Amino acid sequence: MRQSILFGKTLRKGPKDEISKNANLLVRGGFVAKEIAGIYSFLPLGLRVLDKIARIIRGEMNDVLGAQEILMPALHPIENYQKTGREKIDVLFHTELASGGKLVLGQSHEEIVVPLAKHFISSYRDLPLGLYQIQTKFRNELRAKSGMLRGREFMMKDLYSFHADENDFEKYYERAKIAYKDIFEKAGLGGQTYLTFASGGTFSKYSHEFQTITEAGEDTIYLCKECKIAINDEIIGEQKNCPQCNAPIAKLLQEKAIEVGNIFPLKTRFSDAFGLSYIDKSGQTHPVVMGCYGIGLGRVLGAIVEVHNDKNGIIWPESVAPYKVHLIELRTKNLELSDDPVRGAAEKLYNHLLAKGIEVLYDDRDDKTAGEKFTDADLIGIPWRVVISEKTVQRNAIEVKKRDSPGSELMSVVSFLQNLKVKM
Amino acid sequence: MRQSILFGKTLRKGPKDEISKNANLLVRGGFVAKEIAGIYSFLPLGLRVLDKIARIIRGEMNDVLGAQEILMPALHPIENYQKTGREKIDVLFHTELASGGKLVLGQSHEEIVVPLAKHFISSYRDLPLGLYQIQTKFRNELRAKSGMLRGREFMMKDLYSFHADENDFEKYYERAKIAYKDIFEKAGLGGQTYLTFASGGTFSKYSHEFQTITEAGEDTIYLCKECKIAINDEIIGEQKNCPQCNAPIAKLLQEKAIEVGNIFPLKTRFSDAFGLSYIDKSGQTHPVVMGCYGIGLGRVLGAIVEVHNDKNGIIWPESVAPYKVHLIELRTKNLELSDDPVRGAAEKLYNHLLAKGIEVLYDDRDDKTAGEKFTDADLIGIPWRVVISEKTVQRNAIEVKKRDSPGSELMSVVSFLQNLKVKM
Repeated sequence: MRQSILFGKTLRKGPKDEISKNANLLVRGGFVAKEIAGIYSFLPLGLRVLDKIARIIRGEMNDVLGAQEILMPALHPIENYQKTGREKIDVLFHTELASGGKLVLGQSHEEIVVPLAKHFISSYRDLPLGLYQIQTKFRNELRAKSGMLRGREFMMKDLYSFHADENDFEKYYERAKIAYKDIFEKAGLGGQTYLTFASGGTFSKYSHEFQTITEAGEDTIYLCKECKIAINDEIIGEQKNCPQCNAPIAKLLQEKAIEVGNIFPLKTRFSDAFGLSYIDKSGQTHPVVMGCYGIGLGRVLGAIVEVHNDKNGIIWPESVAPYKVHLIELRTKNLELSDDPVRGAAEKLYNHLLAKGIEVLYDDRDDKTAGEKFTDADLIGIPWRVVISEKTVQRNAIEVKKRDSPGSELMSVVSFLQNLKVKM
Repeated sequence: MRQSILFGKTLRKGPKDEISKNANLLVRGGFVAKEIAGIYSFLPLGLRVLDKIARIIRGEMNDVLGAQEILMPALHPIENYQKTGREKIDVLFHTELASGGKLVLGQSHEEIVVPLAKHFISSYRDLPLGLYQIQTKFRNELRAKSGMLRGREFMMKDLYSFHADENDFEKYYERAKIAYKDIFEKAGLGGQTYLTFASGGTFSKYSHEFQTITEAGEDTIYLCKECKIAINDEIIGEQKNCPQCNAPIAKLLQEKAIEVGNIFPLKTRFSDAFGLSYIDKSGQTHPVVMGCYGIGLGRVLGAIVEVHNDKNGIIWPESVAPYKVHLIELRTKNLELSDDPVRGAAEKLYNHLLAKGIEVLYDDRDDKTAGEKFTDADLIGIPWRVVISEKTVQRNAIEVKKRDSPGSELMSVVSFLQNLKVKM
C-alpha cells in the first residue's frame, strides 16, 4: 500500500477526549476513528489488524476445536429473553419493529443459538457440536472511557458448545482452555495473559477468564506465581488457597488486568429454558449440556496496544501487524521525481517485496520530511522499517531497523529477505 | 467437511411461512434459518456462499476501483441525520443510549462516512478517494416476505467515492459500472442482470441499478433488447426513447426483476450538509463531489438461487458454490465399516482432494439411503457430484455427475481432476 493514498493520517497529538492509551495511540496512528464514546470506525490499518486477530481465532476454532462457523443476526426478539429471564439486563439496547414487536440488540447469543440448535439437534448422533461466529455485539454501557477495552459496539467471537453430558463438556472445556491460551500466545499477549478463576454464577463453581495484565485494566486479579494462574477479585474473598496449586492466598500478587476472553460452563441453564434435549441410544431424553466461550476482538486489539508500546508509539507483534515492512523513501534533495534514483530503487524494492507475498506499507509521500516519516513509522509500529535514501542507493544496500531495536543496519536486499524469512 | 457432522440438515418440505422460492430452497438445503421475517441466521453452508460473494466483491473493489476497505459502526447518532434531513426515513430502527442520546441503526452510511472523511480530506492531494465496507445494515420494513431479497438485517457492501469535480466523479462512475458488471458476471448472474436507468432523486438526472430478471422480483423494468440496458418502471413515464440507444420506448420488454446493486451520483448533497470541502492548487475551497455504490450480499445470494434452480433444488454457479465437489459414499450392504472397501476408497479420495486444495463436502452419513443422499445432493446443489460405491470400487473408478447435466459418467480420479481443472 502506498502511504500517499492510504486513508487515515497520523496525528501529532491525541484527541483530548481519549484518555485511554490504546485509543489515543490507535487514533493518532490512523487505525481507528471515534464516532461517539465506545463506538469506533476501523480505518484500513485498523481493519487489517482486526482481520489478523480474526484469522488467528478462526484457525483455532476450526482446526483445534472442530467448531463450525455460522453468522447469527444482531436483532433479537425480546420474547427469547423473557424465556431465559434476561430481558432486564441493563446493557441491552432496545428497539421496535415497524410491524409491531419488541427487539433487543444482541450483547451475546445464547437466546438465538439455542433455539437455532434445537432445529437440528434431536439425537445423541448430533452431539457434540461447536458453533461459533465473529459478529458485532452491542452493550449499552453507561460510560465507555477505555477506548477499545469497553465498547458499546464491538466485534466478538462467540462459541457455543453442545454436549450429551457433563463429562463430554468438561473434556471440551479443557481443550478450549488450550485453544484460548494458543490464541493469546499467537496474538502476542502470551506473556501477559493468565487463565483466571472467576465466578460461575449461581449454577457453576467457577468460570474462567483470560486476563491480560496492564495498568489500563478495569479488573483486579490475584496472580499465583507458583502455577501461573490468577483469581478474579470478585471471588478472592471465598478462597483460602490457590484453587489450582493450593498455595496460600496471601502469597498471590494483586494486579490490574483486562479480560480479553472468557469461557463459561452453562450446564443446562439455556437448554432448559428452550427445551433443547436429545434422545440417547436407549431412547431416553436428556437436556443438552452447554458451554460458551467469548473473545472480544477489539479488546484483544486494545490490550495488544496497551502491552506493546513505547513513548514513540505502538510496537505490533508480527502476527497481527497491519503490514510486515514499512518501506520509507527519503528522496534526494533538488532532484525531480523522474531523475531521482531513490524513487527508482524504492519502487523496485516495493514491487519485489509484493511479488514475494510480503505485506508492505510504502511511504512514498513527497510532502513529508525524513523526521516526519520516522516519527510516523514509530507511531504506526510496523515490525520492520526499511529506508531507501541517497546514501543507501550509493552503497547498493538498504537500511533496516526493527521497531523494537534501537539501531539500524545496512544490508543487501537478499540478506534482508533472509532475515524476514527467519521470522516468518 | 464431513456431512455427518455438518450443522444444518436438509428438510424434505419447506417451511409453510416461507413463500419465496429462494428462502424455501435455502432453508430446506440447510443454508439459512429464519429467526423472524427478514432476519436469518447463516448456517455453515450459507456462510460459505456469502463469503464467496464477498470475495468476488472485494476483488473488484480493491483491484479494479482501488477502493480501501474500512468498517463503520451500525449505531449512528440521530444528530447526523438531522443535518441531512433524513431523520424521518421510515425504515430506520431507533434506539437510545443509557447515558442519554438518540441513535438509529444504519441502513446506509452517508451520515457516518462523510464526517469521517472530513477528518482526513482537506486538500486536492487527498482526492480522489474510494472507501468501502462489507457490513450489516438494518431496515425496519413493514413487511418482509421475499426471503433473502428484502431483509430487515442484511450484509451489504457500500462504497463511497470522493472527487474534486464532476468530471473526475463521472470517470469513476463509469469504472464502477464496469466493476459491477464484472461482479454479477463472476457471481453467475451475468446473463440475467441489466444496467437499469432509475431515478436520480431531486438532484441528479439518473441513478443506475443492476436488476436481475426473475419472476420473484419486486421491481418492474423495461428491457431494451437493442442495447441490453433497462429502464426502471419509476421513470418509464418520463421516457420517449431508450436513453442509451434511442430505440422507441414501445419496443421495450416489460420484466419482473430484483435490484441486486445500485450506483448513485450524490453530487454535493452530503458534502454540503457536513461541510466536506477541499482546497485546490490555487488555494480555493470547493465542496467534494461524491458517489455511492451498494450491493446487498444476501440479495445477490437470493437472486442466484431464484435464477439457478430446478425442481430438485439449487444449482450453484461454481464461483459461489459452498463446495466444489459433493463426494457421496454408498456403503456396501451387510459389511461392517472397517471391512467395507467403499469407506476406504471414499476416505482416500476425500483426503486426496483436500490435499489438492479442492473444497469437498463428503457425505459419510451411515443412516441415509442412496436415494436420500442423491435427493440431498440435488437440493444442496454443489456443482460436481462424485459417487463411490461397491460398483465403482470394483471398476477402480468414480461416478461423476455435474449438477446441471442429466447423466453421470464413470471415470478415473485422474480424469476427474483434469475435468475439474478445466473449470477451475
